[in-house]
Amino acid sequence: MCGIFLPAEVSTRRNTRRQRRWPGDKGHGDKGHGDAGSAARTGRQHRGLPKDAWDKVQHLGQPTETTPRCANTSIRHPLTGCQRQRSRIPSQSSAGSRMALLETSKYSPGSVLGSVNPDLASERQTASFCVEKLTALLDGGAEQTRIRRAVVEAIESDPVFSRENQYFQTQNERYEAAVRKAVHLQKKMHEMGWTENGPEYKYIYRALSGDVAFLLHRVFMRSISVLGSDKQIAKWIPLATRHQLIGSYAQTELGHGTYLQGLETTAVFDIATQEFILNTPKISAMKWWPGDMGRSATHTVVFAQLYIHGKCHGIHPFIVQIRSLQDHSLCPGVTAGDIGPKMNFEHIDNGYLMLKNVRIPRDNMLSKFCEVRPDGTYVRQGSQKINYFTMTTVRISLISDEVLTPLMKACTIAIRYSAVRRQSKLKPGEQEAKILDYQTQQEKLLPQLAAAYAFHFINDYLQELFNRGYREIQRKNFDMLPELHALSSGFKAVITHHCTAAVEICLRACGGHGYSLLSGIPSLYTKILASCIYEGENTILLLQTARFLIKCFMAASAGHPVPPSVTYLAAVKPGKCPAKNKLDFLRPDIYTEAYQHVAVRLISSTAAKLQDLIQSGVKKYDAWNQCTVQLVQAAKAHCHYITVKNFAETVEKLETKAGIQRIMKHLCDLFALHGIFSNTGAFLHDGYISASQMDMVTASYLDLLAVIRKDAVPLVDAFDFTDKSLNSALGSYDGQVYQRLYEWAQKSPTNKMSPAYERYLKPLLHNTLSKL
Amino acid sequence: MCGIFLPAEVSTRRNTRRQRRWPGDKGHGDKGHGDAGSAARTGRQHRGLPKDAWDKVQHLGQPTETTPRCANTSIRHPLTGCQRQRSRIPSQSSAGSRMALLETSKYSPGSVLGSVNPDLASERQTASFCVEKLTALLDGGAEQTRIRRAVVEAIESDPVFSRENQYFQTQNERYEAAVRKAVHLQKKMHEMGWTENGPEYKYIYRALSGDVAFLLHRVFMRSISVLGSDKQIAKWIPLATRHQLIGSYAQTELGHGTYLQGLETTAVFDIATQEFILNTPKISAMKWWPGDMGRSATHTVVFAQLYIHGKCHGIHPFIVQIRSLQDHSLCPGVTAGDIGPKMNFEHIDNGYLMLKNVRIPRDNMLSKFCEVRPDGTYVRQGSQKINYFTMTTVRISLISDEVLTPLMKACTIAIRYSAVRRQSKLKPGEQEAKILDYQTQQEKLLPQLAAAYAFHFINDYLQELFNRGYREIQRKNFDMLPELHALSSGFKAVITHHCTAAVEICLRACGGHGYSLLSGIPSLYTKILASCIYEGENTILLLQTARFLIKCFMAASAGHPVPPSVTYLAAVKPGKCPAKNKLDFLRPDIYTEAYQHVAVRLISSTAAKLQDLIQSGVKKYDAWNQCTVQLVQAAKAHCHYITVKNFAETVEKLETKAGIQRIMKHLCDLFALHGIFSNTGAFLHDGYISASQMDMVTASYLDLLAVIRKDAVPLVDAFDFTDKSLNSALGSYDGQVYQRLYEWAQKSPTNKMSPAYERYLKPLLHNTLSKL
Repeated sequence: MCGIFLPAEVSTRRNTRRQRRWPGDKGHGDKGHGDAGSAARTGRQHRGLPKDAWDKVQHLGQPTETTPRCANTSIRHPLTGCQRQRSRIPSQSSAGSRMALLETSKYSPGSVLGSVNPDLASERQTASFCVEKLTALLDGGAEQTRIRRAVVEAIESDPVFSRENQYFQTQNERYEAAVRKAVHLQKKMHEMGWTENGPEYKYIYRALSGDVAFLLHRVFMRSISVLGSDKQIAKWIPLATRHQLIGSYAQTELGHGTYLQGLETTAVFDIATQEFILNTPKISAMKWWPGDMGRSATHTVVFAQLYIHGKCHGIHPFIVQIRSLQDHSLCPGVTAGDIGPKMNFEHIDNGYLMLKNVRIPRDNMLSKFCEVRPDGTYVRQGSQKINYFTMTTVRISLISDEVLTPLMKACTIAIRYSAVRRQSKLKPGEQEAKILDYQTQQEKLLPQLAAAYAFHFINDYLQELFNRGYREIQRKNFDMLPELHALSSGFKAVITHHCTAAVEICLRACGGHGYSLLSGIPSLYTKILASCIYEGENTILLLQTARFLIKCFMAASAGHPVPPSVTYLAAVKPGKCPAKNKLDFLRPDIYTEAYQHVAVRLISSTAAKLQDLIQSGVKKYDAWNQCTVQLVQAAKAHCHYITVKNFAETVEKLETKAGIQRIMKHLCDLFALHGIFSNTGAFLHDGYISASQMDMVTASYLDLLAVIRKDAVPLVDAFDFTDKSLNSALGSYDGQVYQRLYEWAQKSPTNKMSPAYERYLKPLLHNTLSKL
Repeated sequence: MCGIFLPAEVSTRRNTRRQRRWPGDKGHGDKGHGDAGSAARTGRQHRGLPKDAWDKVQHLGQPTETTPRCANTSIRHPLTGCQRQRSRIPSQSSAGSRMALLETSKYSPGSVLGSVNPDLASERQTASFCVEKLTALLDGGAEQTRIRRAVVEAIESDPVFSRENQYFQTQNERYEAAVRKAVHLQKKMHEMGWTENGPEYKYIYRALSGDVAFLLHRVFMRSISVLGSDKQIAKWIPLATRHQLIGSYAQTELGHGTYLQGLETTAVFDIATQEFILNTPKISAMKWWPGDMGRSATHTVVFAQLYIHGKCHGIHPFIVQIRSLQDHSLCPGVTAGDIGPKMNFEHIDNGYLMLKNVRIPRDNMLSKFCEVRPDGTYVRQGSQKINYFTMTTVRISLISDEVLTPLMKACTIAIRYSAVRRQSKLKPGEQEAKILDYQTQQEKLLPQLAAAYAFHFINDYLQELFNRGYREIQRKNFDMLPELHALSSGFKAVITHHCTAAVEICLRACGGHGYSLLSGIPSLYTKILASCIYEGENTILLLQTARFLIKCFMAASAGHPVPPSVTYLAAVKPGKCPAKNKLDFLRPDIYTEAYQHVAVRLISSTAAKLQDLIQSGVKKYDAWNQCTVQLVQAAKAHCHYITVKNFAETVEKLETKAGIQRIMKHLCDLFALHGIFSNTGAFLHDGYISASQMDMVTASYLDLLAVIRKDAVPLVDAFDFTDKSLNSALGSYDGQVYQRLYEWAQKSPTNKMSPAYERYLKPLLHNTLSKL
């Protein structure tokens, strides 16, 4: 299920060396590292408008100062009105990326681009909170915000990292650009003085929007560092560091992704030559999906079933050279190539690999934990527990860049667009209304915005929990392992599922224009969708969480101690929701308790069904299978409960200044009530919430939409994405959506002369086609 | 909201001249017509396997005969074991398309392609019903099946219509191929003797999988036929028929899709020159999305606000030439081009259009219903009611090809794949299990399969209803109009939404391989997604249905008569569900009644809220907006109820022979119970279904999964898609998924030598990059 190697360390969220897999690949793409490279480039070279009679959209000057709460710093943020510390790198100042759009000098004379659409400007003038403070909260402090912006500025101002024409490029062009960027990033880091241990490092991947090659090279190195002997590390790591080889990580096969034990590649030890002979015994054993392997890699770590004297010892990792270091041709016995087009990740050469009697020296089996001696003796050594732990943390480490960032971007695009798109009349006789003023549009978008915040905070919580876990495990205390494994599995599944659905809602909420690649949302959707599949298929992961929950429930019922996150299972009480009016449902204790109640009910009832089945004579594995649909529901309910509880606790602890706590409280309420409103049956089932209480939930929920709608634009501004990073004609800071759509469309290759005219249209129109 | 012109006639579903819009375009793409062209081509030129040591998948011979129920015909179907009538066109026989795959001669020696994977073959040997009979039922009779297969055979055997390399092509290549196919289709139809009035005609579009250009040319012609005067028809239709011009249909603008009255293009009548002067007064007025307009069209029907003597008379249609008939250059005052990349529809040149003082003769305003006299007098004439009606039928006519076909294809691919994909062990010590044997996988896929059948039957029902409506309206009886409008709006929204979600579930259920374009599901998803947006955005449509429902509810409450589909609103009774055990929930009267109860409850409670708000002093439009989230729910519940009721009634009427009725009854039960299981709150809310009854629903629902699972493969086989039509490496009839993925991937352009090696990789590996 999980990968086999792990990061050497687990640190804070903002400092984690992220490792993750590509779609279907069980290898871990370490995108947080220095081999990433490519910048969001949205502030394109805009052409001027044709000089015709169009009414120009009225220019707005700089937004006026607002939100006087923010007064503890020395420079006033030009957009939010917040004051902030003077930047230590003024040229890369925090406002730089936003200000760029307001420098109309970069646009052609006469273009409205860069001047903020009044419909968007007005949304910002009424923010109930200080946007800059919220950004700092999300970043983990104003200093972090400053560093992040400096990295973004440096990347985005470098034309090599441009993503300007990305939506027009073929898979081949995307791949070539990604390789170019990966090579250039090395240079850039040197220039900027960024190191892998420096504070800037963790922001590079976000700044590049992941558009870079050689992510698996880093995974190759990490797997050697973690799974290799000291001798192997000494041999291979310097070669890889100097890029004298390009590495990949070959785990997933055509026939096996989730079920690692089922991998079919074989490695037979030949005692006579002291070699392993690797083979792909059947087509389903072909390696399939590993990133960087299709066209780039010269070496890869192959996972194969180890055979010695005809006995199988299970899956082990082997370093295999697949391409010549001289001319890049495939090595003898190796068949490899690119697996072709995918929904996204066009820049990555996900590959296939077949091996036919490929011989590698005995030293190429990574042997920190298992060794084959020259005489064929198989030896296990050391404890792999810390490995298994770090492996589970990978699922958590991907949440920030691969899941939350796309959702936050999609929310930014859809909400800004909904504030400038006017359609139909809400009130007779008035101007057409902003679509954000329609309740149905609010109901689509605002819960997704609330979810982005909810999952941001649960991600912080999980990171902290895993850091604590890591420290315990270093002290040889493995008690937390089962709980952490269950949490990482369940939350990976719940967050990727929820956020993928949310991005799709954002896409549809933009109507026809959302469907254009130029909106930027389609590529966010196709990318986040993969997160539901890689790093463990979501359903399988939820069932792992469920297995833990059932065990803990049984233990708790028998009076045994259980891990902290599930102690609530011990305190099962029937009870009823005490809410008396709709305002009671804005009380975190009320709704958190309701979520807890549902989680307990679903876990306990499924445990009961399972036991009943087994007692009635159904085989254990059959009984389990017959309960899996309900087990998945139970696992989701557990994660949902913890997310709501954590959001409420986070809000409680926030400083009350600058309006931050109040708006976060609204979002927390919205997230919680949306969850009840969308799953009414779970809460009504045993009467914990009554029908009339459910009507109160609905009323409070709908009321909240109108409240949060007022701050919707400032709430997405706080995510602080630059236009280049959003790469969206609909989502830019200035809200000039129609102009931008038009200017970008003109650059499409589909506006070059097509041979179709000479070949087909002209003969047709001139009636010179052979007569029918 | 809706389009303005309509098909000249409304006929049976299989005979309807379909009209539909492209994403965001309010023009109607008439894909059912002769200007369609391009064939599904899945049976690619497969290369042989490398001669290596792979275990060959064991070949299976022809499946044995099964299902002895089918014995009323004379030729036994070689795959299903069913006997059938001797075909009148033996070379295009019903089994021809399937048999092709079993002709191993078309594959290279040694390839397993063409021999059915035993895991799939075994699924077919145990069908509880006659597949061939079910196919005939879906087609509307065995003769229809025969004709459809003959069309498919003719199209698919023609290399010009090949879709073989479609997943590798750029937008430009797709466009060029679509134009080539459109031109070739004219020839093909002539060769085959197919005419627009012949029985084959309606199958051409499905056979082409919609991959063809000039769909809007037909819409252009239709709009002239319907909206033009006799004189205009006499002038333009012959030119268009002879392709002496290429037409498009320009309605949607950058700033307006849904709200037609808001269109901003102007047409000012110049009495001095007897011309209209057309202008795009601002950027949001630019026409945006119309198909065929980006690169192909020479003429288009432009919808613009008509001004005479400074007075606006609203939106009217004008014929405007946009490109030269000589050299295809843009006409003076015209700016036009392609809007660039989209999530799908790469083959269509959706375009933009700006007009600057473009003058057209007075005769170019389509004037069947409205005329501008030479002196500037504006005259309305005739009744447009029949137009408005046919306009609403467009939403129904798109369901079959654009929504049901993609879902049926996705189900076919995902279910066949799930029967050959083995992963992990269900029972210890046994072989890895087919993923279709896991309850969670069944719970993902089987409800989608049931939905495909449910919506197939509701589509038949709607087609019939609309035909009846058309006959009434021709007799000047307009009583049915409001009901038909409400039904077409609601069902368009509900079916497109449900089926889009279903296709996405199928995609995810295939794991990593589903994410590859070669699986065929990604392009089904990106295409069906557009159906939620075009022909009226779904939320807006549901609110139109809701408005009708609220009105009818009020009328019924006051004792007034209401249209047939909503008479149930008059009979509001509180009551409780009478089910006593889980088997009772397999009774259609029980579950249909439950759906009816929920629909009534949601409609009545929302009507009450609306009235309360208005009585409390809230303005009517504000009150409406505050109820819209609930109004949408009510409209969905209404459509869901009618779908379930219709499915149950259809099953009731089926012949009991050949196992068809029994399996359809299972699917009907599953569809109904899945709907309750997924919306428990709606049924629990007022206690109509109690908690313990809901547990019975769950039990019956989960039981049904295991029952239907046994027939899952035969149920998708009955959809009768050829491999070329599916164009899927995962979904082919022979189930050789891994081999096909591999062979197709090798043909990807990403397996050609990339310049990235010489430019970046070689200098990097040879350490000749400029030193950092």
